[in-house]
Amino acid sequence: MSQAGEPAAAREFIWPVRVYWEDTDAGGVVYYANYLKFMERARTEWLRVLGIEQMPLKEQEGILMVVAHVDVSYRRPARYGDLLQVVCSMSEIGKVSLTFEQRVYRAAEGNAAGGELLVNGTTKVGCIDANTFKPKALPKNIVESLSRSMVGSLSA
Amino acid sequence: MSQAGEPAAAREFIWPVRVYWEDTDAGGVVYYANYLKFMERARTEWLRVLGIEQMPLKEQEGILMVVAHVDVSYRRPARYGDLLQVVCSMSEIGKVSLTFEQRVYRAAEGNAAGGELLVNGTTKVGCIDANTFKPKALPKNIVESLSRSMVGSLSA
Amino acid sequence: MSQAGEPAAAREFIWPVRVYWEDTDAGGVVYYANYLKFMERARTEWLRVLGIEQMPLKEQEGILMVVAHVDVSYRRPARYGDLLQVVCSMSEIGKVSLTFEQRVYRAAEGNAAGGELLVNGTTKVGCIDANTFKPKALPKNIVESLSRSMVGSLSA
Amino acid sequence: MSQAGEPAAAREFIWPVRVYWEDTDAGGVVYYANYLKFMERARTEWLRVLGIEQMPLKEQEGILMVVAHVDVSYRRPARYGDLLQVVCSMSEIGKVSLTFEQRVYRAAEGNAAGGELLVNGTTKVGCIDANTFKPKALPKNIVESLSRSMVGSLSA
Repeated sequence: MSQAGEPAAAREFIWPVRVYWEDTDAGGVVYYANYLKFMERARTEWLRVLGIEQMPLKEQEGILMVVAHVDVSYRRPARYGDLLQVVCSMSEIGKVSLTFEQRVYRAAEGNAAGGELLVNGTTKVGCIDANTFKPKALPKNIVESLSRSMVGSLSA
Repeated sequence: MSQAGEPAAAREFIWPVRVYWEDTDAGGVVYYANYLKFMERARTEWLRVLGIEQMPLKEQEGILMVVAHVDVSYRRPARYGDLLQVVCSMSEIGKVSLTFEQRVYRAAEGNAAGGELLVNGTTKVGCIDANTFKPKALPKNIVESLSRSMVGSLSA
Repeated sequence: MSQAGEPAAAREFIWPVRVYWEDTDAGGVVYYANYLKFMERARTEWLRVLGIEQMPLKEQEGILMVVAHVDVSYRRPARYGDLLQVVCSMSEIGKVSLTFEQRVYRAAEGNAAGGELLVNGTTKVGCIDANTFKPKALPKNIVESLSRSMVGSLSA
Repeated sequence: MSQAGEPAAAREFIWPVRVYWEDTDAGGVVYYANYLKFMERARTEWLRVLGIEQMPLKEQEGILMVVAHVDVSYRRPARYGDLLQVVCSMSEIGKVSLTFEQRVYRAAEGNAAGGELLVNGTTKVGCIDANTFKPKALPKNIVESLSRSMVGSLSA
């Protein structure tokens, strides 16, 4: 059950990304595969905030997190120099997989709220054994920690 | 209507991709966003074979091809040094969009057939006006040329 | 001669970079070409701090900044999850080119100073006409602004 | 001593690279870091032709090949759709390092010879122990095999 004072950031996480030349293509816009990099940066930073570092998870628990499925809609292009905001939430937390909902906005000038939606997508991350590559359940304490960040999980 | 002797390559196109260090990550496998590059290389080369070059299309017709949606399933990892085969077909040809079905195989040793399926996905490419970025129909002769490559389109 | 209160950041600029999966390769370390991305991010952010945005420079002055030469030494590898610091200074400011000295450190744990030197290099950036691609001089006020950031330029 | 009929390809190796969207940036040209990818593809393919596969070299000999230094001059830009030729030769073969000279040309239309020089550079590759990351000598038979490909080494 939810606690007063539970940080809002735990349910929705926002990570800023600046668009550099490396991210764009000769169409003048961000190259479509690069949004998958931006989305992963945001997931990584969110997991770090939640206390989950992937390299110790591999070394101590023998678990790798790998992307099993992505579904991405490209609505408007981002351009060189844009400041983007990548918003993450979790729609499903299983023992051997996590599903993230992600949206990429162009940050509104002079106003953090009300940016323009550019890209949105769903990413399913599987947890696998670092040696056998077969599904391997996350430790119970990690699942519980993540569950507290799940959309709607804090409502009584 | 189809002709006997119509090249099979017109309905299904295969493009080889060798995995280099640039494609992999510290998990020891191909980084998930990079399959989108492999898939695009194959689409580009197929369109070239079909007589459609994207730069002239932009300069002469004012049409850009942009990815509108991707849906990708990651089944097994590719590794450094693997030789992959990216197989493309088209499942839908509209006036302002094309939908590609794509599968990535690890080429079987000593036998081109019977590779292992690693990744598969669907990519919807939209055709837009290079200036306004609004949907713009492909020239009729291009749609007709593409229609001849569509899966099943050759059956009477 | 230097002025008290002159911001130190103007002569040496530091930009933090976190290493994600996208940056690494199957050797377990950051892929060598990706340090050029890190170095450019730092140059871009430094120029932004100094009041130079590249897109307006192109649109208003018709000037593109392009890399003409790089010389990079790889000393120690960076790994997934490392926090890096990219340090920039300028060793030469010409009318049609800028030369940057750059060093990449692994940030020391719990202590910003004293990181480990991983990579260092020199990058020469040329200023060219956006249409003709021939050398084009930077506006005088920009050269003056940059000169104030040059290493040693403030000593009498 | 050289043999009549010794393949010229052994002293100079050419690898073709097609420029895709992934390689370009919003300046309309190939992004500068990506030439390092092209150069590595050519080195990798050349070593493969010479009988050296890097993954077996790691697994059987415990040797990793890592880039220690690059020096690259950017002369003219490559663009989307260009067909490039990456030319390699070896200027130095040591026990623990190899030095490659590389040039990138835009292939001449309808004539393989006489392309336009876009980029050239020198890459020093170090051989290190896969565990300790300290220099480790290549097996004698590999050094001998490589020596036969060195520029000028075949002249009596």
